[in-house]
Formats: sequence, structure tokens, C-alpha cells
Amino acid sequence: MRIGELSARTGVPAATIKYYVREGLLSGGERRSHNQVEYGEDHVRRLRLVRAMVEVGSVPIAKVREVLAEIEEPDRDLDSTLGVASRALSQHRVPAERPAEEDLELAQDVVRRRGWHALPADHDYMWTLADAIRRLRELGLADMVDMTGEYARAAEIVAEFDLALLSTRQERDEILEAMVVGTVLGDAIFEALRRIAQAEVSGRVYLRGQRNPKEEE
Amino acid sequence: MRIGELSARTGVPAATIKYYVREGLLSGGERRSHNQVEYGEDHVRRLRLVRAMVEVGSVPIAKVREVLAEIEEPDRDLDSTLGVASRALSQHRVPAERPAEEDLELAQDVVRRRGWHALPADHDYMWTLADAIRRLRELGLADMVDMTGEYARAAEIVAEFDLALLSTRQERDEILEAMVVGTVLGDAIFEALRRIAQAEVSGRVYLRGQRNPKEEE
Repeated sequence: MRIGELSARTGVPAATIKYYVREGLLSGGERRSHNQVEYGEDHVRRLRLVRAMVEVGSVPIAKVREVLAEIEEPDRDLDSTLGVASRALSQHRVPAERPAEEDLELAQDVVRRRGWHALPADHDYMWTLADAIRRLRELGLADMVDMTGEYARAAEIVAEFDLALLSTRQERDEILEAMVVGTVLGDAIFEALRRIAQAEVSGRVYLRGQRNPKEEE
Repeated sequence: MRIGELSARTGVPAATIKYYVREGLLSGGERRSHNQVEYGEDHVRRLRLVRAMVEVGSVPIAKVREVLAEIEEPDRDLDSTLGVASRALSQHRVPAERPAEEDLELAQDVVRRRGWHALPADHDYMWTLADAIRRLRELGLADMVDMTGEYARAAEIVAEFDLALLSTRQERDEILEAMVVGTVLGDAIFEALRRIAQAEVSGRVYLRGQRNPKEEE
């Protein structure tokens, strides 16, 4: 197909497609003549993958390139590739500076109380967790630190399902693509469902006749 | 305290503090003399709240202002304020265009299967959910659409806890602050815990002797 059709099928403007090719996110099409370049189904799929990262995950172009480069390194160990890709997709949440020891300890406590094997304190996600805990403490919202226990229970349900989805896939490409899509779209889906569930639970409380604090005044 | 101390206590540079005052995110300090302005504990707390939104939630300054303006409107109905604030904090996930009817139907199905009262199809979060479902479908990952059921179960656990936290608070200010912090930090905490849980579950599978696909080759 020509670039116009590729653009129509993916909703990505032709200028953006050319930019992605220049930036190495997408292979160039096959040149058929002076002014005709052919694109195929692989391009459609790759563009959709890039758009999921950029539009839903707000992943910067440089990180998208990093993730795609990992996927295209067939000799690399799968676990290490999964780790690199997963970190690239989550970088925006990681604090720039190492959290205080005290907060890293609290983060480890959350994990241990759930019966999980704690990750090393210097793991990106332990930093993210410790940073969030510090902010809650500084705002005097200690009871919200305790909520992390319930959050961990819910996260385990989601993670078990995430891993089950990967385990049905055999090919390296498929596994990596499912991981990238699952990470980015999974976050968005969970955020949306959390808010929809809040509306649902809030409605239930209301129906039970428990009035909201405003009305109790 | 002087601006230097306010900056030291919150980690926010003095220039940024002045910028927030100009932008209306923070009230000015009390002028004591020509070159001395005093700030108080309210400023410390407000800065921490702003930083949680900006640094953890990547909320644009204009949206932060919108949320804070809602909080400071004491006569407004609490539920409507909560709705406005919650939407402002989630705007980056909402697709620009209305999803196709088919995808909105699939999103409603997810919600109904969980036994929830569906939100109107044109609710922001239904759009976000429908948009994510469309991307999964277009990538041919229909089994990942099915995962939304498990995600919804996990989201309900989190939402019940979120609402319980709000219900322990009496004052309008406290309720709104807890909602803003809970929304922004709650998303970050869940994302981190999801990834930590994935590492945990993945390790368990490995220990059970089920080898990962790479090793099966």
C-alpha cells in the first residue's frame, strides 16, 4: 500500500510516518519507482504498537526506540530484554534521586508483608514506591500508606493475569509485543476501571443510605 | 519562614515557588517589609500537593489550577467538585475523539459483566476504556481484551479501599485533598506494585520448574 493508505488505516499522518522512519522507529517501505514506496501489514502493526506507546503511555520517542531496538535483538536473553523494555516504559515514574533509606525500608515492608520476595532496594520500582510513600508521609496521610497492602493484593491479581497472557505465547516477537502492549494499555485500562469502580462503589454506599460527609453537615 | 526555608523544606526551587504564586497555584506570602515575605505551614502543604500532581501525576499546570480552584469553592456541591477534580487529573488518558460505537459497547460489556451499573457511554473513563480495547483489537490481541475482567476485579478492591479512606474524613478540604493525592499517588503506587508483582509471580513460575519460553527452545 502507499503511504496515504497506511496513514488512513492507522490514523497516523503521513508526515508523522516519515518522521518515525527517519527516527528509526519504523523501517522504510519498499521503493517501487521514483515516487512510489510500498508499505505492508508489518508497517501497519508496527505503527499501532508505536502509537500505543506514544499516545497511551506518553512514552518519549527515544524510549520507544530503545524498546524497539531490544525487541529486534533476537540473540539477547528474553528475560533481560523484558527487563530493559519494561524499565524504558516506566521511566517517567522513577524519581531522579535515590529515596531516603527510611522510605526504601517502608517500601520493602509493603512488599514483604504481602509475602513477596523483595526486589533489591535499588530497583526502579522500589524507588517509585518509596517516593510515593515519602510524599504521603510528608502530607501527613499515614493511613494512605497503609492502603498499599490492599493495592498489593490487587496488583497480584493483575500480575498473575499478565503473566498468564505471556505464557500462552511462543514466539519471542509475540511475547515482547504482548509485554509492551500489556504494560502500556494495562496501566490505562486499570486507571479507567479504578475510576469507574470508584463511581460504582460510591453509588453503592449512597444506596445503602450512608450519606456522604457533605450531607451530614 | 522565608522563601529559602520554604524551598529547602519542600525541595521546590525559589524561582518555581514564585512562578506558582504568579500562576495562582499558591497564595503569596505575607509581606513583612520591603524585602521580606513570610510563608507558613499552609504553603508547605500546598506546595507538596502541587508537586505530587506535577511530578508524580504529570498534571499540566492549567489542570492543577483547575483542581485547586474547585477545592477552594466551599459552596460547591462536594460530589460535583470531586467529579471535576477527578476528570482534570485523568484528562491525559482520554482520547480526543469519540470511540466507535462498537468499542463503547465492548467497554460497557466489561463493566456489566462485573455487575456494575454502567456509566453513560460518553463518560471520560468509558472513552478511555473503549480506546484501549480498540487498540488491543487492532493489534489482534483479543485475549488481552478478556483480561479486562480480572482487571475490573482488582480495580474494585482498590476502589473500595479508596472510598473507605475518603469516608474517614469529615472536612471538605481534607476529603478533596485525600482524593487528589489518592488519585495521583494511587496510580503511581499501583503501577509500581503491578511491576513488582510481575517480578514476583514470574519468579514463582520459574521456581515451580516451568521454564520460560526462551529456555524451552
